[in-house]
Amino acid sequence: MNNFEQFEKNESDIRSYCRSFPVIFNQAQGAELVTTEGKRYIDFLAGAGTLNYGHNHPVLKKALIQYLEEDGITHGLDMYSAAKERFLETFNRVILEPRGFANYKIQFSGPTGANAVEAALKLARKVTGRSNIISFTNGFHGCTIGALAATGNGHHRGAAGVPLTDVSRMPYANYFGDNVNTISMMDKLLSDPSSGIDKPAAVIVEVVQGEGGLNAASAEWMRKLEKLCRKHEMLLIADDIQAGCGRTGTFFSFEEMGIKPDIITMSKSLSGFGLPFAIVIMRNELDQWEPGEHNGTFRGNNHAFVTAAAALEHFWTNDEFAKSVQAKGKLIKERMQKIARKHGPDSLFVKGRGMMVGISCPNGEIASAICKEAFANGLVIETSGNHSQVVKCLCPLTITDEQIDKALTILDAAFAKVMAEDIANQAS
Amino acid sequence: MNNFEQFEKNESDIRSYCRSFPVIFNQAQGAELVTTEGKRYIDFLAGAGTLNYGHNHPVLKKALIQYLEEDGITHGLDMYSAAKERFLETFNRVILEPRGFANYKIQFSGPTGANAVEAALKLARKVTGRSNIISFTNGFHGCTIGALAATGNGHHRGAAGVPLTDVSRMPYANYFGDNVNTISMMDKLLSDPSSGIDKPAAVIVEVVQGEGGLNAASAEWMRKLEKLCRKHEMLLIADDIQAGCGRTGTFFSFEEMGIKPDIITMSKSLSGFGLPFAIVIMRNELDQWEPGEHNGTFRGNNHAFVTAAAALEHFWTNDEFAKSVQAKGKLIKERMQKIARKHGPDSLFVKGRGMMVGISCPNGEIASAICKEAFANGLVIETSGNHSQVVKCLCPLTITDEQIDKALTILDAAFAKVMAEDIANQAS
Amino acid sequence: MNNFEQFEKNESDIRSYCRSFPVIFNQAQGAELVTTEGKRYIDFLAGAGTLNYGHNHPVLKKALIQYLEEDGITHGLDMYSAAKERFLETFNRVILEPRGFANYKIQFSGPTGANAVEAALKLARKVTGRSNIISFTNGFHGCTIGALAATGNGHHRGAAGVPLTDVSRMPYANYFGDNVNTISMMDKLLSDPSSGIDKPAAVIVEVVQGEGGLNAASAEWMRKLEKLCRKHEMLLIADDIQAGCGRTGTFFSFEEMGIKPDIITMSKSLSGFGLPFAIVIMRNELDQWEPGEHNGTFRGNNHAFVTAAAALEHFWTNDEFAKSVQAKGKLIKERMQKIARKHGPDSLFVKGRGMMVGISCPNGEIASAICKEAFANGLVIETSGNHSQVVKCLCPLTITDEQIDKALTILDAAFAKVMAEDIANQAS
Amino acid sequence: MNNFEQFEKNESDIRSYCRSFPVIFNQAQGAELVTTEGKRYIDFLAGAGTLNYGHNHPVLKKALIQYLEEDGITHGLDMYSAAKERFLETFNRVILEPRGFANYKIQFSGPTGANAVEAALKLARKVTGRSNIISFTNGFHGCTIGALAATGNGHHRGAAGVPLTDVSRMPYANYFGDNVNTISMMDKLLSDPSSGIDKPAAVIVEVVQGEGGLNAASAEWMRKLEKLCRKHEMLLIADDIQAGCGRTGTFFSFEEMGIKPDIITMSKSLSGFGLPFAIVIMRNELDQWEPGEHNGTFRGNNHAFVTAAAALEHFWTNDEFAKSVQAKGKLIKERMQKIARKHGPDSLFVKGRGMMVGISCPNGEIASAICKEAFANGLVIETSGNHSQVVKCLCPLTITDEQIDKALTILDAAFAKVMAEDIANQAS
Repeated sequence: MNNFEQFEKNESDIRSYCRSFPVIFNQAQGAELVTTEGKRYIDFLAGAGTLNYGHNHPVLKKALIQYLEEDGITHGLDMYSAAKERFLETFNRVILEPRGFANYKIQFSGPTGANAVEAALKLARKVTGRSNIISFTNGFHGCTIGALAATGNGHHRGAAGVPLTDVSRMPYANYFGDNVNTISMMDKLLSDPSSGIDKPAAVIVEVVQGEGGLNAASAEWMRKLEKLCRKHEMLLIADDIQAGCGRTGTFFSFEEMGIKPDIITMSKSLSGFGLPFAIVIMRNELDQWEPGEHNGTFRGNNHAFVTAAAALEHFWTNDEFAKSVQAKGKLIKERMQKIARKHGPDSLFVKGRGMMVGISCPNGEIASAICKEAFANGLVIETSGNHSQVVKCLCPLTITDEQIDKALTILDAAFAKVMAEDIANQAS
Repeated sequence: MNNFEQFEKNESDIRSYCRSFPVIFNQAQGAELVTTEGKRYIDFLAGAGTLNYGHNHPVLKKALIQYLEEDGITHGLDMYSAAKERFLETFNRVILEPRGFANYKIQFSGPTGANAVEAALKLARKVTGRSNIISFTNGFHGCTIGALAATGNGHHRGAAGVPLTDVSRMPYANYFGDNVNTISMMDKLLSDPSSGIDKPAAVIVEVVQGEGGLNAASAEWMRKLEKLCRKHEMLLIADDIQAGCGRTGTFFSFEEMGIKPDIITMSKSLSGFGLPFAIVIMRNELDQWEPGEHNGTFRGNNHAFVTAAAALEHFWTNDEFAKSVQAKGKLIKERMQKIARKHGPDSLFVKGRGMMVGISCPNGEIASAICKEAFANGLVIETSGNHSQVVKCLCPLTITDEQIDKALTILDAAFAKVMAEDIANQAS
Repeated sequence: MNNFEQFEKNESDIRSYCRSFPVIFNQAQGAELVTTEGKRYIDFLAGAGTLNYGHNHPVLKKALIQYLEEDGITHGLDMYSAAKERFLETFNRVILEPRGFANYKIQFSGPTGANAVEAALKLARKVTGRSNIISFTNGFHGCTIGALAATGNGHHRGAAGVPLTDVSRMPYANYFGDNVNTISMMDKLLSDPSSGIDKPAAVIVEVVQGEGGLNAASAEWMRKLEKLCRKHEMLLIADDIQAGCGRTGTFFSFEEMGIKPDIITMSKSLSGFGLPFAIVIMRNELDQWEPGEHNGTFRGNNHAFVTAAAALEHFWTNDEFAKSVQAKGKLIKERMQKIARKHGPDSLFVKGRGMMVGISCPNGEIASAICKEAFANGLVIETSGNHSQVVKCLCPLTITDEQIDKALTILDAAFAKVMAEDIANQAS
Repeated sequence: MNNFEQFEKNESDIRSYCRSFPVIFNQAQGAELVTTEGKRYIDFLAGAGTLNYGHNHPVLKKALIQYLEEDGITHGLDMYSAAKERFLETFNRVILEPRGFANYKIQFSGPTGANAVEAALKLARKVTGRSNIISFTNGFHGCTIGALAATGNGHHRGAAGVPLTDVSRMPYANYFGDNVNTISMMDKLLSDPSSGIDKPAAVIVEVVQGEGGLNAASAEWMRKLEKLCRKHEMLLIADDIQAGCGRTGTFFSFEEMGIKPDIITMSKSLSGFGLPFAIVIMRNELDQWEPGEHNGTFRGNNHAFVTAAAALEHFWTNDEFAKSVQAKGKLIKERMQKIARKHGPDSLFVKGRGMMVGISCPNGEIASAICKEAFANGLVIETSGNHSQVVKCLCPLTITDEQIDKALTILDAAFAKVMAEDIANQAS
C-alpha cells in the first residue's frame, strides 16, 4: 500500500492528477513510469503533451548531464549565454528556415504556456492599439488572468475572482455542427459596425483543441480564418503549446495547411525533456517590444536550451521522425476506431489528429470509469473535453509499437467492461 | 570581440539584461560567471535574487546529476512523486515547523513568481468573496495581467494593453517620508465607508521591495500592517519571492518581526539552483481550492524538488548559514556606507536589509554609469528603484569575503570615477 | 435664411439631429412642427419614439398647466407626492393589472432610458450574484458606461474611453438569416461548461430593435428566449423604451406574445409629453433593493407623473386607441410596401412592426439622400440600422390619416427621385 | 393619518427620502412644502440642491406656462429650437462671458448629473488618450457605472454588480487633517513612474463636497490642484452639480478662486425649476466630439431651457442676488455656530461654504435623530457625510430671513433635545 500522508498533510487540496493516479512515481524512461514500489505503467498522458520525446530520453539526458558537469550556466535571466545562442541557431536552422519562417523572431517568455500567451496577447494589443481579442469555445490558453480571459473552461474561469474582460468568444470550427459555417458568422459580426464586437487586435486559436476535447480544425477552416484575419486586420495567433512539437505529425500543427500565423506560442514539449520553457515566435515587423516590457525571472532556462537544441538535432534534421509519428498516429487511430465500433458503434467515435487522438464517450462518467479501469491495469490515461467525455491519448511520440499494442489492449478491455456495465445499468 | 549576431537576428528586441552586459556567458560557479572567451566576472546580480546559493552549487549539482542518472521522473504534472514527497517533508521539517508554520499548506503553482502571485490573489478573492486587493507603491509582483495589476512599475504597466483593475494602490512604509504614518492613512481610508476604497480581499506586500529600490519596511510597520489586516478582515500576503530564502539573513524576510502572513509566495532561490519553481504557502483554513481550479503544465518540476530539498538540508538545518549571511550583510553594508560617505556624503546613501542592500544615487543616469564602469572592471551589478537610481547588490549569499572585497573595490572605483565626472559636468 | 450662429458658437460639435434638419423649431402640435419662420413639417421622427401621443397633446397640456397653476410640487427627489401616488395608482390599474402584471413593482430611476437600463442591470446582477449579461447584436440600450456595454453601436462604443465589460454578445433573431436558429446556438453555448460564456445574470432584449434597424423578433423567438432564460436561470429584461407605450399596437411590445419578462425598462413616451421620465418594472420577488442603493436627483419628476397619468387615462382605459394604432400601422406598412415595390422591387423592403416600420435601402447613402429630399419637401424623417440603411417611420400614434397620406406622398417622391439617380449613377 | 399603501404596494423598496419624511407632499412654493393634508414644512433640503430659486418661482412658472400655452416645442432631441437658442445666448451673455469663459462651449447631455459626468469623463479620456481618472475620497458623482467608479460612497458602489475600474482614488483637501498636504502626496505619486498610478486623463473634483459631508476645499488647495493638473497634463473637471448655480454665493463655486477648470459639469438647479437638465461646459479646444458620439433622448429638454433662461435673466444680470446669498449664508452660519457652541462646544462644529453649510455631529445616529425631531416640528432637513453625521442645510437661496429664523429655531430645539438625551444615555 502506498502512503500519501505527506501529501495530504502538506500539499494544497488543489492537487488534481494525483487523485486519478494514486501512486507515487519515482522513475520514468521513454513511455514508461515506475512507482516507488516498482510497479510499471505505460504513459498515455505524457505530461499532457509535454513529453513528446518520452521521459528522460538518453540523448537529451546525456547532453544535460554533460552541461551540468561542465558547470554550464543554469540561470542568467535574459543575458546572452552560449546555450541560448546554440538553441537560437538550431531552432532557426532546423525549424524556422525550412518552413518559411526565416523572418520570424523569438521571445523567451516566462517558462510556462500561460506566460507565452500573456506575452502574445500584450504584443498583439500593443501593435494594433486595440484591446479586444477573439478566442474560441472550448479553447484553453492558461490560468493567469490575461490568458484565462481567453480560456473557455468554466471551472478555471470560476476561480478567477475578477471579471475576465477584453475577449470576445466565437464558435470554433464545427461548433454548431458540420453544416454551420462559423467563419461566415464571424465575418458578419466583424463587418457589422453595430454588432457589439469591438475590432479585435487578434484571434488566438488552437489548431487542435487538446483540453477542449481533441477538436481539430480542418485546413480549409484554418485558411479561411487566416483570410478573415487579413480582411479585418486582426493578427492570427496560433497557440501551438499542446499541438506543436510534432504531436500532429509535423513540427507545427498547421504547417501543411499553407497558413502563416503572425504569432506562435510554444511550450510543453519544446525543451524535449519536460523542463519549463516557453517561447513566442513573431513576424519580424511585429517585434515592437521595448527592452524589458514583459519580463520574468526564469525566461532564460539554460537547461531547457540545452535539451531543446539536442532534441531538435536528434529528431528534426530529417523527416524520419515525422514519418514515424504519422505512421503511429494512423495505427493508433485505426485501433481506436475498432474499439469504438466494437463497444459502441452508435455512441463512441474517434476524434483528433496525428498522435493527438481519443475516443469520445456518451458522457464524462463513462470516460472517467474507462480511465480508472485502464489505470488499474497499468495504463496512465486521462479524459479531456467540455464534459470530460473524451478518453485522450497523448502518449510519447517515441513510444514503440509493442507499447502501443499493449496499451490499446488494456484500453479495449476497459471499454468492454465499462460499456457493458453501462448497458446493464440502463437496462435495470 | 564577441559576436551577438545570432541574438540580434533571432531574439526579440525585448531582451534586456544582455544590453547591460554585452558578453556571452558560458559557465558559472559560485559567485563567478565565465564568458565564452574565458573572461571572469563577479556576480552581484545573481539572477535578480535567484541564486542565493551561488551558481551550480556542488552539493545540489551532485544531487541533480544523480537524479538524472537514475532516470528520476522529471515531469509529472501534479502527480505524486518521490521527489515531491521528499521536498514536502524537508520543507515542512526544516522551514515550516521550526518557525511556527506547521499549520500551513503548500500549493505548487506554475514555476514562476508571477504565477504564484496570480494563485495567491485568486485564493484571497475566493476565500473572502471580495475582488479588491491592496498593493503598494513601487511594489513588484510580476507581469501577467493579474499580477501586473498589483505591480507599480509604469514601464511594465504601460505594456498591459488592457486596463489593470481590482487593485487599490497604497503608500508603502515611509513613502511620504519618515514622519508620515502610512498605516494610519490606510486605516482612515478603510474605515471610511465613502472613501471609495472597496473592502479588500487582501494586502500584498514585499517586506523589502527589491525591484522598487531596496525599500525596507520596519518590523513595527509590518506589525501594524498585520493588525490593520486583522481589523479590516483582509488577508496578509507576503510576497517573499525576492526577499525570501535567506536573502535578509533569515529564511523568511519577516520571521523576526513576529508576524504571521496568511499567505506567502516564494520562487526565485527556492530551487537553490536557478531552476523554475514557485509555491504558495497558506494557512490550512484558507486552502479552499477545489481540485485543479488553478493549474499549469510545469507545476511539478521534479528537478527543482531535488535541488530544493538538497539546499534545505545543506543550508537550513542549523543556524550557521543564517549567521554567515548576517555577518556578510553587515560587512557589505559597512563597505557601502564608506563608499557613500567618501564619494557623495550628501547625495549617496545606503538602503536595504541583510544581503539585499544598495547605494542610492542622485539619479538613474549616475547609477547606470556606475554599473557600466563596474562591469568594465569585472563586476556584474544592476540598478533598481523607481528611477533606476539604486546600485543594488544581490550577490550569492555563499560569496566569499575575498570576492566581496574585490567586488566592492571595483564598485568604489566606479563611484569615484562617475561621481567625479558628475561634479565636473555640473561645474561646466 | 436661418441663422445658426448661436449654436455653432456655443453648442458642442456633438450636436447631431440638427445637422439633418437645419432649421430652428419653435412650436409643435400633434404631428406637426413649426419653425421660427413659420414653416411647417410633418414629424415622422417624433423624438425617436418619445412623442407617441404627438406634440403638446391638449389633454396632457391642460393637466400640466393646471398643475403648475396650483403650485403642484415639481421636484421632490423620491419623496411621496400626490402626483406620484396618482401615477402609481393609474399605471397599476390601467396597465399592470389588466395585463397580468399585478405582482410587479415600479422603480423610478433617473429620468433617462440609459439610467433605467443601468438600474435594471444592477438589480439583475445583485439578485443573481452573477456579473455577465447577454445582449444582442444591433441592440441599443444607452450611452452611460453600464448601458453602453450592452449596446452594439460601434460609434458609441468607440467613445467609451474604457473597455466595456461583463456583457456577452449574442446574435439577435434572424441575425444569421431566417434558417439559423439563434436560440439553439445560445442554448448550446450556455449548456457547455467550457464555452467561455460565463453564466449570465440576465438577457436584455428589445422586442423590436429601433436604433438597430427595425429588426422585429417573432413571438415564437421571444417565447423560446423566455424558455431559455428559465432553463439557464437568467432573468429576462425587456427593454421597451422605444417599442413600448403603444408603438407596436399594444402598450407593451410583447404583450400578445404570451411572455412575462422579469424586468421591464420604460422611458421615452412614458410621460406622454416628451418630459424626461423612466421606470424599471420588476417582479415583486426581485425587488431586493436596499433603500437608496441606486439614486438620482430627478428620479421623481412630478410634471411627468401628471402628464403620464393623464395619458394613461386618456388613451388606455379602453381599446380604441390600440385598435387605431394597429389600423394606422397597417395603412403605413401597405403604403410603404407599394413604395418599395415601385422604386426598388429587388432592393427595397419593408421592416418592422405596428407603427414602427421603415424601408430598408441598399445602403446608408441612399437612405440618407431620401431623408434629405423628404425634409426639403416638409417631412422630418430619419434613418436607423447598422449601416443607417433603413428609412424609419416613428410618427406620432395620434397622427391623422391625412397627415399619413401627405407624408407618404412626400416619401414616395423622395424614393422616386433618389432611386432614379442611383440607377443613373450606376449606369454611368 | 397619511396612508402610504399605494407606494408600499407599487413602488420599489429602493425608495429612500420618503422614509425620512413620511407624508405626502402636494404643493410647494418658495421655501415651503405643503402636504395633501395641508400641513406646511420649511424646506431645508430643496431637492438636495436642485431648488436654489425655491419651488415654483413665479417668474419661472409664468414663463413656463406661457411657453406651454403657445405650444412651444417640448421635446426635440438635439434639434435646434428657439428655446435652446435663447438659453445658449443667455447663458453665454450672463454667465460665461462676464466670468472669462467666453471660449467655452456647452454640451447638452442626458438630463441628469450622472450623465453629464459620464460625458465629461468620456471626453477627457478621448482627448488625452488615457483611461485613468483621479477622483477624491467622499466624492459623489452619480450612480451610473462610469460615474459610480468616480463616486466614493460604499453603499452605492456595493450595488454596482461589476468592478468599478479606471479610477484612482486620492485624498481630498484636509482628508488626513489640516497638516497633511494632499497635493504634495498626489504630486509624489504622479511623478513616480513606479507608483502604480497610471497617468490620468483628468481629475474630477467638487469644490464643496455636498454628499460627502460639506467638505470645502480652500482656494489655495484648488489653485494647487489646478497647477498639479497642468504639470501632469491632466484635465481639471469641476463637478459643480451641487455646489454651482449660486449655492456658495457665486454662480460657479470656484469663480473667486482664480482657477479655470477645463471642463465643468452642471445640473440640479440649472433649470431653476427642478426640471431635469444637465450640461457639460468645456474649453473650445477640448470639444473634440464627433456628432452623436454620446447621446440620449432627453438631451434637449425645452421646458428646462425656458425656465433656465428666465432664471438667469432674473437672478444673475446684476450682483444683488449673489450678495443676498452671501448675506444669508453668513447669517445661517452664525446661527449654526451658536447652536453648536450651545449644545456641543466640544463635539459639534459647523462645516461648509455659502448656503451649503451644516453641523457635524458626533455620529450619524445623533444627526439622524436631530433631523427626525426637526421634521416633527415642521422642518425638512437631511444628513450627509460618510457616516451621515452632518446635519445639512440646503435651503432655497431665495428663502426669507423670517423662514431662516423659524427653521433655525426648530433646529436649535432639536439639537437641544437630542444632545441632552445623548448625554443622558451616556451617563446611564
